[in-house]
Amino acid sequence: MQDLLHYEDFPEGLVVPFGAYYLSKEEVIAYAREWDPQPFHLDEEAARHSVLGGLAASGWQTSAILVKLAVEAYANRSAAMASNSMEEVKWLKPVYAGETLTGRGTVLSRRVSTKRPEMGILRFRFELLNAAGELKTEITGAQFMRVRHP
Amino acid sequence: MQDLLHYEDFPEGLVVPFGAYYLSKEEVIAYAREWDPQPFHLDEEAARHSVLGGLAASGWQTSAILVKLAVEAYANRSAAMASNSMEEVKWLKPVYAGETLTGRGTVLSRRVSTKRPEMGILRFRFELLNAAGELKTEITGAQFMRVRHP
Repeated sequence: MQDLLHYEDFPEGLVVPFGAYYLSKEEVIAYAREWDPQPFHLDEEAARHSVLGGLAASGWQTSAILVKLAVEAYANRSAAMASNSMEEVKWLKPVYAGETLTGRGTVLSRRVSTKRPEMGILRFRFELLNAAGELKTEITGAQFMRVRHP
Repeated sequence: MQDLLHYEDFPEGLVVPFGAYYLSKEEVIAYAREWDPQPFHLDEEAARHSVLGGLAASGWQTSAILVKLAVEAYANRSAAMASNSMEEVKWLKPVYAGETLTGRGTVLSRRVSTKRPEMGILRFRFELLNAAGELKTEITGAQFMRVRHP
């Protein structure tokens, strides 16, 4: 366990850069078919006539991509203990098929649980951007993280 | 378009019952592998020793199940226009592999957009429960819906 990142390694203000994710048209449609089968996530023609203006991923898929990037960037090298809520999920702009996405996680604030001194609560903001730097999805929420020296 | 549900069909207080969803162990692991590859969502032994106490779905997968049930229950029979945010996502209890889930959507409040009178904004609470009636996941957020007679 010594090598894993712990609560102490996530000071307030820390920014963790994420890797990149290419989102293909096939993946947009496959996710939508399984989890969010609405016409504007499944069909290019229907999407063009929707408020999205083109084939765009379910907002929930863009959230899943952000989570995946966060897990790969730090959570899987850490003593993360899951989460019980997100306080806000914003889908600011449509994510179109064919975009390459990246992101970052910022520690907004943190505290040790009073009931469970071995557990820290990190309040994170996760941001998903495209290659042009447009902010697409923003999630704010808590992540529980083991304290190295409770 | 006449047959589709519109904004007018979703009065405040309306409760829409959802169908059922059986969540297998294989699906928990498959989702985790793709989107949230943390040990307690992938491995029964690791999960038993985690705060979750057993192999439990990613909270994001439980959210995706709730969205799928909502789409099947009403969104795909409606003039839904997507969404731009969720104001809260709560994972109140772990959802374990092998549970059968159901849910409901409640219209908390609604209004017509002042900028876009053809668009209604429904504020929904979505609740995911297991067969014993335990509330597992609760999502509150906006859904845009076309107004039949703007």
